[in-house]
Amino acid sequence: MKTRRAFLQSLAAAPVLGGACVARPSASVGVRPAPIGTGTPRHIIHLVADGMSSGILTCANHYSRLTRHRPLTWFELTRRPELRMAFMDVRSQSSWVTDSSASSSAWGSGVRIPNGKVNQTSSGGKLVTLYEVLGAAGWQRGLVTTTEVTHATPAGFAACVKSRADGEDIALQYLERRVDVMLGGGRKHFAKESRRDKRDLRGDFRSRGYAVMDTPGDLASAPFDAPWLGIFAGGHLPYVIDQFGGISKVETVPQLAAMTRAALRRLGQAERFVLQVEGGRVDMGCHNDDAAAAIREMIAFDEAIDVCLGFQREHPDTLLVITTDHATGNPGLNGIGDNYEKSNQAFRNLLSIRQSIPELGKRLVLAEDAGQFAARLFESTGYMIAPRRRELVEPFLKKKGYALFDGLNSDVGAMGQVLANHTGISFTSTQHTSDHVPLLALGPGADAFSGFIENTEVFERYVGFAGVRFRNPQESLVAGVDPEPGSAENVAEYLLG
Amino acid sequence: MKTRRAFLQSLAAAPVLGGACVARPSASVGVRPAPIGTGTPRHIIHLVADGMSSGILTCANHYSRLTRHRPLTWFELTRRPELRMAFMDVRSQSSWVTDSSASSSAWGSGVRIPNGKVNQTSSGGKLVTLYEVLGAAGWQRGLVTTTEVTHATPAGFAACVKSRADGEDIALQYLERRVDVMLGGGRKHFAKESRRDKRDLRGDFRSRGYAVMDTPGDLASAPFDAPWLGIFAGGHLPYVIDQFGGISKVETVPQLAAMTRAALRRLGQAERFVLQVEGGRVDMGCHNDDAAAAIREMIAFDEAIDVCLGFQREHPDTLLVITTDHATGNPGLNGIGDNYEKSNQAFRNLLSIRQSIPELGKRLVLAEDAGQFAARLFESTGYMIAPRRRELVEPFLKKKGYALFDGLNSDVGAMGQVLANHTGISFTSTQHTSDHVPLLALGPGADAFSGFIENTEVFERYVGFAGVRFRNPQESLVAGVDPEPGSAENVAEYLLG
Repeated sequence: MKTRRAFLQSLAAAPVLGGACVARPSASVGVRPAPIGTGTPRHIIHLVADGMSSGILTCANHYSRLTRHRPLTWFELTRRPELRMAFMDVRSQSSWVTDSSASSSAWGSGVRIPNGKVNQTSSGGKLVTLYEVLGAAGWQRGLVTTTEVTHATPAGFAACVKSRADGEDIALQYLERRVDVMLGGGRKHFAKESRRDKRDLRGDFRSRGYAVMDTPGDLASAPFDAPWLGIFAGGHLPYVIDQFGGISKVETVPQLAAMTRAALRRLGQAERFVLQVEGGRVDMGCHNDDAAAAIREMIAFDEAIDVCLGFQREHPDTLLVITTDHATGNPGLNGIGDNYEKSNQAFRNLLSIRQSIPELGKRLVLAEDAGQFAARLFESTGYMIAPRRRELVEPFLKKKGYALFDGLNSDVGAMGQVLANHTGISFTSTQHTSDHVPLLALGPGADAFSGFIENTEVFERYVGFAGVRFRNPQESLVAGVDPEPGSAENVAEYLLG
Repeated sequence: MKTRRAFLQSLAAAPVLGGACVARPSASVGVRPAPIGTGTPRHIIHLVADGMSSGILTCANHYSRLTRHRPLTWFELTRRPELRMAFMDVRSQSSWVTDSSASSSAWGSGVRIPNGKVNQTSSGGKLVTLYEVLGAAGWQRGLVTTTEVTHATPAGFAACVKSRADGEDIALQYLERRVDVMLGGGRKHFAKESRRDKRDLRGDFRSRGYAVMDTPGDLASAPFDAPWLGIFAGGHLPYVIDQFGGISKVETVPQLAAMTRAALRRLGQAERFVLQVEGGRVDMGCHNDDAAAAIREMIAFDEAIDVCLGFQREHPDTLLVITTDHATGNPGLNGIGDNYEKSNQAFRNLLSIRQSIPELGKRLVLAEDAGQFAARLFESTGYMIAPRRRELVEPFLKKKGYALFDGLNSDVGAMGQVLANHTGISFTSTQHTSDHVPLLALGPGADAFSGFIENTEVFERYVGFAGVRFRNPQESLVAGVDPEPGSAENVAEYLLG
């Protein structure tokens, strides 16, 4: 095994090759021990509510006031005078609308890359990741998420693959790069039964000294002197609403706050660590135009913030950065009724929704007739649908709908629009948007996150806090093709018409 | 005419009556000369981009980079270390989704009132407005807007009426309360030909010493020793896109930046002033799900910020507060195409749109057949619509469409969704949303606008800067009705179905 110094020296000498393991840094590299003082963090916790549009943040605040009788911690934090606040441009190299892998890779390597890749440039150049640099500098590194632990956002801190879809290779890289703590879902990427290479990766982790966990009980009794691999579901962890909604029969797994607390207890043993905590299913709820599911994921994320604040109180040399990788679907509680006086009441209907849209959809497509369809919808959501509206949505559930805007041309998009009559909350589409996103920072180093920042600056700051000078080679942004004279959905059809 | 001292003393003695002109303040009232130093502004400029969702701000930034080759001033400002940034809860008394009159009234009286009213409580109690208090304290007061100058947002600083629709009474109150500078649209509320009471309000303004202006030329030569009434259109000023788009035949009027520059030259003669500058048609563009129109209004608003920054450089005792009264339709540039790689190209199609949706709609409804419909749409927007999509939108243009979500049940909502295939930008609805909104503050007093604020605090701060202690009686927020067992669009129909 290379020593840290040898690894960092190797960065300076590595050739630039498309297939090279490590790209040549553009600046000189060296280790300078980080000064441990008020100004420089020894612990970095990077919290990501994936796909958090401005509107879902506000709606979660309404929900928190309604059910927890207090605002979100996110907004309580903004009242602290020592808090720093910024907006961040999260664009990728290939589009003003980023995906999660390019967005996390910008934090994880300081380079904007095309959507779909993880820390690889458009030409296949492999970038050195944050977790390699900080690992070489002696920092422990953790990943906690409600998605598969190999999903785009966690992967962006530690892995380098051509396609974000390659969860199996990402899992292998976590082993090779020896990430210290991984908690989340995605067992299929580790188990020999489901891996294409039939490799027993869980066994390999175990033989390298990892505590491999499968259940909440395992997590509760995990040893503090070993690295951790805790995988609690085959794929993503189930939505909070399906775990506690009372209709779907899904596994109950450790919640984000509990995983975060455990990870901090474990990593808190180390002199220096960096931890990414992802509320990953906020984004998935918003991709489904599913306000009820997404808002509950936001609350779970807020509980994880509370855990981190508790840790920071006991360890003041901890920097918290709380943000999102992009907005998704830009939901909003709309004005409903005369003078918008029915909006609050509509919002309260969220309380009667007891399933995520995917779980609800499974039951709706099996309904034998219109009456059963409406009854099941009512049972799961409290929404009584009129026959005329049901006739509008049914083609979409049969994958035969055709929307005015293609971005809503899906079963979930259509269901989201129908349920907006119930909750008041609708979405622009089922896709990400290009919105600049908010960022909060608290603790030593927070001053570096003020005003307006580029997502690539996050990498620079974190590496700087470790006293390392390192920069990956930068890519050019795609300026965008020249505007065409006009977009055409079907010119031939138009000319005939 | 009352002296200032007499007016402010009268506040303390006024009875609380539903119909009373002035409500009893809840705290003692007195004039204390404002200390003129670095800490307290002598000039306050309150800039409002009406209906500015987070997403329209980002889209305007894309547009600015594309056409002006620089970011919005809004975002450039966030990089200044002395800038203060906050989120603001803009809810009204009656709904988490405010309208412009309740929102502006919260700034203008420090009280959350029901949507639809201007500085009147739910029981009809009349509130003392910011411009009365500051006028009594010797401050000059201005209103500049691209809407009718009697519209909700300007009115919220100066008027007190039961319904925001009563522009004629608002115009009268501006005369009685002697607002020093008014620039915008809304001639119909001032002219004897169109007023219900046949009163020649323009003549009344003139006889009270006002310079009454109708044209850009009048504005250029306006005297600095008189108060100003400059009204440049019958209703709202035309959309920028229709003035400069080249298809609609609309009047060219003074732009927001030009009106702001003129107002500041005039008010800058005074020792102390407060000026509200409203980019009022951002909201109207978003109500029409009209990204092309709204973004150009955002650029015009940004140019007005530049003018104010120039004034502030020469007058460092100026506080700038830049914000919005609420979000509208939460637009976003959506991910389009594989890996979202067509989003940038879609956005560039905005450049080919040369009319607002209302102007376009006038031409489309007169189209004689499908071919002419498609040809006119193409001419105005560069968008070639497929016959199948045209068949989907036509019922909405004939007011016979029926959408999955009622919030998009309109001709403009449907047109907005269709054009989203062209531009990538769609909206959640044609209504306001409940989003907490961003606020920037720069200059003396900016520290009072940090972190998270309630909209009512704006009044308290501004009055405080004038050294006046005054507070209107507060209203209780509507907690919201109990959740019903389920919302029903048509229960009888459902039971039959």
